Order: sequence, then structure tokens, then C-alpha cells
Amino acid sequence: MPLVRISLRSGKSRAYRHAVGDGIHHALVDVIGIPPKDRFQIIAEHGDENRIYDRDYLDVARSDDTVFVEISLRRGRPAALKQAFYRRVVENLAADPGIRPEDVAIVLTENSDADWSFGKGEAQLLGADAPPIRTAVPA
Amino acid sequence: MPLVRISLRSGKSRAYRHAVGDGIHHALVDVIGIPPKDRFQIIAEHGDENRIYDRDYLDVARSDDTVFVEISLRRGRPAALKQAFYRRVVENLAADPGIRPEDVAIVLTENSDADWSFGKGEAQLLGADAPPIRTAVPA
Amino acid sequence: MPLVRISLRSGKSRAYRHAVGDGIHHALVDVIGIPPKDRFQIIAEHGDENRIYDRDYLDVARSDDTVFVEISLRRGRPAALKQAFYRRVVENLAADPGIRPEDVAIVLTENSDADWSFGKGEAQLLGADAPPIRTAVPA
Repeated sequence: MPLVRISLRSGKSRAYRHAVGDGIHHALVDVIGIPPKDRFQIIAEHGDENRIYDRDYLDVARSDDTVFVEISLRRGRPAALKQAFYRRVVENLAADPGIRPEDVAIVLTENSDADWSFGKGEAQLLGADAPPIRTAVPA
Repeated sequence: MPLVRISLRSGKSRAYRHAVGDGIHHALVDVIGIPPKDRFQIIAEHGDENRIYDRDYLDVARSDDTVFVEISLRRGRPAALKQAFYRRVVENLAADPGIRPEDVAIVLTENSDADWSFGKGEAQLLGADAPPIRTAVPA
Repeated sequence: MPLVRISLRSGKSRAYRHAVGDGIHHALVDVIGIPPKDRFQIIAEHGDENRIYDRDYLDVARSDDTVFVEISLRRGRPAALKQAFYRRVVENLAADPGIRPEDVAIVLTENSDADWSFGKGEAQLLGADAPPIRTAVPA
């Protein structure tokens, strides 16, 4: 698993929230190369008073609908793969549910194989069946 | 401190939520070896629409009651100690409040001694009184 | 961006919550040296049942109003700078909104330049315009 935390504006429809989750997950599968079933996402809704952010830092014109995406994942993906992932996420979310590319902020935090338990008290990524980590950007 | 974030299904009783906190804390104390008073836990409740996860990835049959546990802690525990910790957490939560072992997902994120302030503006783990980090699995 | 997560007691006024955000941000700017516009904060409110923590661990006398501050930021600040930052945060929050220094707990998690996208699908910190990382404590 990557574990994905999505923090978005309160009041969005279920379809909107799930489209955000879908778009991020498809980018993780298609670009980062995680297994399609490796989906673990938590969505939190926050009122505008509780989401405080600059509206143009680094020349990005952010609106009230900015979504924050925090992803914990295993160490080892190269910078070029992460860049390709960011591009894909904003493409996917622009297509559905129609989020402006400026309104998608993403932060990654890396950890180790021993740092994951997917259930049953096991550390599955230490086993022989752990999925490999893609290191090349897909064509 | 480890800082423990527990994300669980909305609508659980106070007793259930506290039993989850207790079971995780006791595993941290008994296996990881943190001091008994080193307890810092934040529980967040999420509706089913906002917890999206696969129901059988890595051959773990998850139910609607899956609990996500995210723990920030100091770097240095070996993989075997983490594995023993995961086993103890699911044992504890199976005993009380009665959570299926398949329904406990755990993610660790490590940081450094300088990355903690427990209050008063101090970096307590840089001091001589910082608790040691256990590196052997307890018998 | 650092990304700042503030977890505090439910029921505080908007002015209180924003003062917490302001005090943390000013400490980040003045001590850590981030650009003034580099502000990204998410505030979460939790009832007392969902914030479980020891009341005197490490000789810090915590009250019901303890605030947890989790900050993701780029790797590279030395320990002395982090210590100066913790001191400044508690000074700022004591001044406004009047939080006891004992009631401010801070945890940092570091990551890499490639781990940030501030919008538009770009990895801005990999570019030539990325802000430098301060390594000396300001006078």
C-alpha cells in the first residue's frame, strides 16, 4: 500500500470525492506501478476556516477548491517517476471530477518495507511476494 | 512519543475507540519498549464513503471495520521488532474490542530525535534523559 | 511548503484557530526561513474522547487544551534550528491565542525535494527557483 490521505473542502458530493480517489489511484497504478488492488485511501473534509493556504505561492493560482494529497509509500522511486505521477494526477483530476491543475497539491513521505502491515499482524512487504518497486518512467 | 493516528469507522462507542487506543499503546510499551506514560493518540472517525480500500489485497479479507493506524516514531527499531509489534497489536485488538486481525492496517513513519517537542518549546529527545531505543525483540 | 497539520480541541473559535496557524507560520518564516507565502495548513478539531495523551510525561504538565502540530518539510535543517523553532512556536502561541507552553507538542517529518508538488502537476522544488534551506540559527 501506499496510504493516501485526501483533504478536501467540505460539502463535495460522494461522486466528486470518489472521482478524486479514483484519479489518484489510477495514477499510482499506471505511473508508479503499484498493483491495482493496492488501494487504501482516507478522505477528510475540512471547512474553509480550517484550510489555510496561500493563493499564488510559486506562481500557482489556487482556488477555494484546493485538494491536499498526502501519500505514504515505500522508498525508492526516482524523481522522474514522481514527476510523471504528479502530471498524471492533475490530468486525471482535470478530466474527472474537473479540478483545476492549480488546485492539486501533493506531498510524499517515504518509509521502508518493514514499516507496513496490511493486516493479520504480518509485515507483508518483507516477504518474497512483495511487489517490486518501479524505477523507470513508463513509456 | 510515538504519535499515533487511528482512523476508524464512524459510530463506534467510546469504549470501543478507547480499547483500540489501549491495545495499540500496550503493544508499543510491551514490545517496542516505550515508557508507559509516553502515550499520544489522535482518533479520527470517518464515514464509509471516506474510507476506500481493497477487500482482499495480499490475501487479507478486510471488512467494513478496518482500522488504519499511522505511527510516527524515532528511527532505529529493527524489522523483527516491528513484526513482533504488529502481531501484538492484532492480538490485543482481537481480545478487546474484538477486531478481526484482518482489519488492522499499520503504517510506520520514522524520524529523528531532533524532530520531537513534547511541550515547553524543548526538544526533549536531544537531552540526556531521552529514553533508549530497544533493538532486540523481548523474550 | 512545509505542510502543517494542527490537531486541536473541538469548539475553539475561528480567531483562536487562526491565531494558532499564524503563530506556527510566523515561527516557520522567522526561524526556519521559509518564504512568507509558503503557507499550507490544515486544522482538524477533535473531541476530548479522541485525543488521548499523558498529562505529565517528561515533566510537561499538559492540560485539556494540548495542541498537536505535525509538520512535513524538506530534509536538512540542523537540530539547533529545530530547537529554536520549537521555542519560537510556544512563545508565539503564548502571546496569541494564549496557549500554555506545556500544551504545544510538535512532530516533524522530513522528505526530499522530489516529494512535493505545489500544483499544476509540477515538482517545483526540483527547479532552479526552489527556495534554499537555512542551516544556521538566525541571530
